[in-house]
Amino acid sequence: MAEAVDVAGLVDRARDGEPRAVARLISLVERGSTALPEVAAALAPHTGNALVVGITGAPGVGKSTSTNALVRAYRAEGKRVAVIAVDPSSPFSGGALLGDRVRMGDHATDPGVFIRSMATRGHLGGLSWATPQALRVLDAVGFDVVLVETVGVGQSEVEVVALADTTLVLLAPGMGDGIQAAKAGILEIADVFVVNKADRDGADQTARDLKYMISLGRRDRSGPSWRAPVVKTVAARAEGLDRVVAAIDEHRAWMTEHGELAGRRLRRAAAEIEAIAVERVRTRFPAADELAARVVEGELDPFTAAEKLISGSLGE
Amino acid sequence: MAEAVDVAGLVDRARDGEPRAVARLISLVERGSTALPEVAAALAPHTGNALVVGITGAPGVGKSTSTNALVRAYRAEGKRVAVIAVDPSSPFSGGALLGDRVRMGDHATDPGVFIRSMATRGHLGGLSWATPQALRVLDAVGFDVVLVETVGVGQSEVEVVALADTTLVLLAPGMGDGIQAAKAGILEIADVFVVNKADRDGADQTARDLKYMISLGRRDRSGPSWRAPVVKTVAARAEGLDRVVAAIDEHRAWMTEHGELAGRRLRRAAAEIEAIAVERVRTRFPAADELAARVVEGELDPFTAAEKLISGSLGE
Repeated sequence: MAEAVDVAGLVDRARDGEPRAVARLISLVERGSTALPEVAAALAPHTGNALVVGITGAPGVGKSTSTNALVRAYRAEGKRVAVIAVDPSSPFSGGALLGDRVRMGDHATDPGVFIRSMATRGHLGGLSWATPQALRVLDAVGFDVVLVETVGVGQSEVEVVALADTTLVLLAPGMGDGIQAAKAGILEIADVFVVNKADRDGADQTARDLKYMISLGRRDRSGPSWRAPVVKTVAARAEGLDRVVAAIDEHRAWMTEHGELAGRRLRRAAAEIEAIAVERVRTRFPAADELAARVVEGELDPFTAAEKLISGSLGE
Repeated sequence: MAEAVDVAGLVDRARDGEPRAVARLISLVERGSTALPEVAAALAPHTGNALVVGITGAPGVGKSTSTNALVRAYRAEGKRVAVIAVDPSSPFSGGALLGDRVRMGDHATDPGVFIRSMATRGHLGGLSWATPQALRVLDAVGFDVVLVETVGVGQSEVEVVALADTTLVLLAPGMGDGIQAAKAGILEIADVFVVNKADRDGADQTARDLKYMISLGRRDRSGPSWRAPVVKTVAARAEGLDRVVAAIDEHRAWMTEHGELAGRRLRRAAAEIEAIAVERVRTRFPAADELAARVVEGELDPFTAAEKLISGSLGE
């Protein structure tokens, strides 16, 4: 049984700019409501307009400060901005909710800003399931830019990159030089490098190291490729964010020109469909255990069992 | 179109002990032949008899030497033994084949021994796909014991543990103490610890450290649990392998008594079915790209697309 939700009304109110309706839609997504397919169907015609920017980097480089400063920079351009802060902590810790309140400080009275923390654990399929659907909500209700900020470095970063049109990788002086960046695999995922805390010693050296590593990484590529720019900022004083916005705009223009934006969005949609399909196959049949028992007994082979699982025909 | 293979004849010859027929069946499995479902169906009634022992540990602890010595110990009991050596190198390196010839040295003329290297990369779903099916072949054709030896430590180890009835974790003095073992997560996966090269300095200390760590790990468990024994060996001189065999036998008896063997095999079959089902959904429809394009255009939502992918009904 699908949860009883007035989906059409909720989507209308959210598209009219009512923050509570937006929050309600994301809550439905986040807890994997049975109304989710209906929500997704109602949103689909309105999607595809938002620019999705991923923001990642090691702890301590100033991701939250940079995200807040970037929100202000986009607001100065009159754009509506949403933030999804991906929090790897438990959904039961309460940390996510507290984080929202603290973050909202700057933007609490601004209807053009929406901020939401999402926990990566405790949900169907984790980040790979809920975050793309939350993105669809924010895109469909009319936000021009959606910033997806991640905490730490690891699998969730890779997944966020898969979601974003443009990925910012933040570094700070003394937090790791270019070689460490190369080792961490971030040279490959960054569309724009941001050296934050650029008023500190070593900022120029970090930027130089990065540029050198980027030039090495490009040698064996054929065809046109984007050269990730390195932008220096002092996010705590809102310095340099205009250059970050400009670099994101340039990257978007480059992607559009080279068909890369369409390619990224196609890969994103394919991955999303696949994740949902896999989850459906996994959860649809409580009888999967019965099939496994029959395989253990030698009554069925695993290929026939898999076909039965997919087709839903569990009988003989 | 399924590949034209006389599956029934091949299975009969393999079950009669013809090594070339066994090798052919595993080759069909390893390259994901279209005849694979037919092969699996023919094998199913004959499965469930082999004891599957996983052997893992860091490079340099003497895994291959221990595996060979364990083969000899089981042969001395008159048991037929197969070895699957999981080689994470490329299937195109030729390393796997050379490895087989070197390994076969001791057992080349013994029809009661079958040794096969399997590459983990370059196959449908990697280890999670091919190795369980190779296990089914060796089980169904009548090997009493199948040893699955892995190289290195990482994801493939976790997958091997998921396959095995009993997992041996090998260590060597000076290669890492108990605390390092705990950090590496191997305390959780080991059913039997083997401290190889026990004639070297520090072997007793390594064994003591391990036992201490094991005792700490057991404190917060409720219900009956298996206490992994620590066995010292010098595999190069074939010393201590009888105690390893005895520990494996004890573990099997304990599992049978506590219903754990059936539980492990049920979980293994369920994971196997799921891996096949997921692969089927992923590969069945070349039109998945078309579905993704329609999601990008906003014509379809990803949930409806996923349902179409599963059901195969791609039309409107």
